[in-house]
Amino acid sequence: MDGVRRRSHWAWGYADEEPAADELAATAELMTAVTGFRLDGEIEEPVPLDAVELPAPRVEPPPLECCTTEPYARITHTYGQAYRDLVRAFRGRFDSPPDVVARPRDEREVMHVLEWAENAGVAVVPYGGGTSVVGGVEPRDLGPVVSLDLTGLDQILEIDPLSRAARIQAGMLGPAIDRRLAEEGLTLRHYPQSYELSTLGGWLATRAGGHFATLGTHIDDHVESIRAVTPRGVWESRRLPASGAGVSPDRMLLGSEGALGVITEAWMRVRPRPDFRVSTTVTFPSFERGAEAVLAIAQSGLHPSNCRLLDPTEAWLTSGGDGTYALLMLAFESADHPVDALLDRALELARLCGGAWEEIQNGGGGGEHGTGGQGGAWRNAFLRMPYLRNAYPSIGLVAETFETAVTWDRFAAFHTAVIGAARDALHGGGIVTCRLAFAYPDGAAPYFTVLAPARRGAEIEQWDAIKRAASEAILAAGGTITHHHAVGRDHRPWYERQRPEPFAAALRGAKAAVDPAGILNPGVLV
Amino acid sequence: MDGVRRRSHWAWGYADEEPAADELAATAELMTAVTGFRLDGEIEEPVPLDAVELPAPRVEPPPLECCTTEPYARITHTYGQAYRDLVRAFRGRFDSPPDVVARPRDEREVMHVLEWAENAGVAVVPYGGGTSVVGGVEPRDLGPVVSLDLTGLDQILEIDPLSRAARIQAGMLGPAIDRRLAEEGLTLRHYPQSYELSTLGGWLATRAGGHFATLGTHIDDHVESIRAVTPRGVWESRRLPASGAGVSPDRMLLGSEGALGVITEAWMRVRPRPDFRVSTTVTFPSFERGAEAVLAIAQSGLHPSNCRLLDPTEAWLTSGGDGTYALLMLAFESADHPVDALLDRALELARLCGGAWEEIQNGGGGGEHGTGGQGGAWRNAFLRMPYLRNAYPSIGLVAETFETAVTWDRFAAFHTAVIGAARDALHGGGIVTCRLAFAYPDGAAPYFTVLAPARRGAEIEQWDAIKRAASEAILAAGGTITHHHAVGRDHRPWYERQRPEPFAAALRGAKAAVDPAGILNPGVLV
Repeated sequence: MDGVRRRSHWAWGYADEEPAADELAATAELMTAVTGFRLDGEIEEPVPLDAVELPAPRVEPPPLECCTTEPYARITHTYGQAYRDLVRAFRGRFDSPPDVVARPRDEREVMHVLEWAENAGVAVVPYGGGTSVVGGVEPRDLGPVVSLDLTGLDQILEIDPLSRAARIQAGMLGPAIDRRLAEEGLTLRHYPQSYELSTLGGWLATRAGGHFATLGTHIDDHVESIRAVTPRGVWESRRLPASGAGVSPDRMLLGSEGALGVITEAWMRVRPRPDFRVSTTVTFPSFERGAEAVLAIAQSGLHPSNCRLLDPTEAWLTSGGDGTYALLMLAFESADHPVDALLDRALELARLCGGAWEEIQNGGGGGEHGTGGQGGAWRNAFLRMPYLRNAYPSIGLVAETFETAVTWDRFAAFHTAVIGAARDALHGGGIVTCRLAFAYPDGAAPYFTVLAPARRGAEIEQWDAIKRAASEAILAAGGTITHHHAVGRDHRPWYERQRPEPFAAALRGAKAAVDPAGILNPGVLV
Repeated sequence: MDGVRRRSHWAWGYADEEPAADELAATAELMTAVTGFRLDGEIEEPVPLDAVELPAPRVEPPPLECCTTEPYARITHTYGQAYRDLVRAFRGRFDSPPDVVARPRDEREVMHVLEWAENAGVAVVPYGGGTSVVGGVEPRDLGPVVSLDLTGLDQILEIDPLSRAARIQAGMLGPAIDRRLAEEGLTLRHYPQSYELSTLGGWLATRAGGHFATLGTHIDDHVESIRAVTPRGVWESRRLPASGAGVSPDRMLLGSEGALGVITEAWMRVRPRPDFRVSTTVTFPSFERGAEAVLAIAQSGLHPSNCRLLDPTEAWLTSGGDGTYALLMLAFESADHPVDALLDRALELARLCGGAWEEIQNGGGGGEHGTGGQGGAWRNAFLRMPYLRNAYPSIGLVAETFETAVTWDRFAAFHTAVIGAARDALHGGGIVTCRLAFAYPDGAAPYFTVLAPARRGAEIEQWDAIKRAASEAILAAGGTITHHHAVGRDHRPWYERQRPEPFAAALRGAKAAVDPAGILNPGVLV
């Protein structure tokens, strides 16, 4: 049931991309150099696919061609792509695989799977690219489960060039969407870090953050209408540029994480590729000064496409910095008009905050790939990161990233508190870096990276302790438990404290109405 | 319980603003001249306040200081501000007034009213400025009702100048919000036609459309967090610049029209007043050519603050046109940087569609008031329109406005079909005009005005027939039943056909969870 090229059973990417021995040694050396802490030098091998032992399926699969209980399918649908997933898969621990994997080829088959699951009392975990980093696709603590892999729904069904919109099936992967749209000179322009392996449906269900650092930051902002299958029928909104007819049906599906319905397709706003593009990187003497510039630019109404600030350590780790300066990546783009004047004005604002820059890069097209310079270096590092991380279990490194958003009035204290809490959880052995990934007039979305030497065999406990400390600090200091990674199962305890209780009751009521048997992704949100 | 200045019991505005005899004659003459149809010349008088007969209250009011059964309060809380409301009030028909009017001074009193209402089985109709044009505040076909007037909650509680946000109570009127914010050099920049008499809470509950013709068109886009009181506790989201933590709690309250909770306050994004402002009006040989320009500008990413296209008749009626050309009002504004180059580029796009213009106006500040020229004339007419309309029942004119949104691929056929259906419903006696009120990359929001000679005494039937014909055409041609006027009771039949059934079930489930007795604004949405 998989294509010619098989996904790795444990690592990010395909089986033929698992890191080789020389790469592991090189990564260990690099990480020692940049983090300043020593790894223990041991190189551990992953448990090979054929050595993985799986519990037997707890349910007979339905007599549907799209369903299987084949071990490789169950193994590769057990986890998402969090570090805690990577480590468990690396060690061959697949304790809670789905009992059945369904890979429908059309919506009718999706309905058949739901029908069977409801009758058989089987939980349905919708699965797009399987890139959740929050336990969103993991059948943890559930009874019998079918993992509903949507990647068979992988077509663009219609393109409306006049309205600049495309009807895209939910299981289509990022690169495939862009390849097809490029044939019409269009692009969705949504590049999450998971872009290569994640799907439109996954982005919608989790409110993914994408390419734009300001304006249209979430996939939410590019939706025209969504179609989902629920146990009580098809939930499809009218295709509209905007509406004020009551509560938005689309906004109730966005972020529903598979708990209200299985998204099968959406009309998405697309755009021509940007012919006008200018970018540069600006250095600041400190992260704080850089953040002042981000605030000024975010409140200017200039709407840069990129406006991401790396703290000195992150600039050093990823973008050729030396640890002495913060680095702001700044870019403007348009398919209609030159944007040089906008960059000039943003740089004026940056200068007032101590920013300095050298070269301004011009270039149209501007796909997901880097454009050279430090900004290009960061972009390449950003897209390579999941591959780099494949080496961590082998070389004995624990990694965690977490992200949030907070208003500017709280920002400085928030940053200090969260960095402090994460550092405390490391007990001295490790580093914590921060970048501002998205910027708003009223706040910013900081993204934190934690790297620490692993206590071999206890990585999950290490990771959980870091996650707990960071999440507590985020909540206490006024942030959101997630800006664009979703809630999943990992964020659930803090999400419950964050959301207002009557809203939680309303959401439970909404779910009970469309999913009375409670089969849809139990454990997330509700 | 009212202030020094009393609202008129039938007309838009205050009692001292009801139209005088000479104004009525002048308006009749004007409307005859511009519409081309003859009115019957009779000037009818409104039924005076003291001649209005009210049914007795069907319920004892609670022993709360904020509650009254006083006739003036009940009369002025019977209707919104639709033409069909105006006519009924003018004729002294107040058949379904609320039994009790509550005007709490704080949130605690709101809770007390809800508690009483739930126990007593009394429906609660939240009432802000009472400017609904869709029957949203009318206790139609209900048992005992309390109209919950929120205008006692009229303060700005906090201003966060760094994040540019303000915590505003729901009952505050538009001008009061801006007056208070102006003291800090800030503005909410939200100017619906009802601005003078409508409230923040009403805007949020109905997803009001405001100042900006592109980007941030709805009040939704300026919300940081909302606080509402429900029969099952306080629903308050965390104050955040953005979040991806599950389904958005705010987006479930936006457009809930009082059916899920009573909005008591919100943190709103505010901004400095725009120091840079350029505007002009562009003429086009036809509405169709003008619409091509709106499409091009909306897809350009230039984000004009104003980009509203009047068809030749509407330009003639409101903005000094002569009926031979369509008129585009175009403006750009910024508090940070000059916007002349943006206007220049938009005009280049307009020229390609046959657009021509003369004067470009520069001017900072840019409050809600006109800035001279045809654009200023339109803006003044826009804000005066509700007052002008006060004369219609007297002089024998029926008026209806309806608005929608549709994608560009359907736009031309849609416009023809809807105009045609509305004209057919007039049986030859009347005019139908259209403007594009909001513009999106993937579509536009047309706003239609219907004017016709009244069949005296049968205006409601006339109005209902026009509404029915227009609504059917809108739905059939792929539009939304409302872009920013809300659903209320008037749009309910078409709204039910528009929304997906599983979503309707989810909304009912959500409501049942927070409002198990079903007391909150029964008849709207659910």
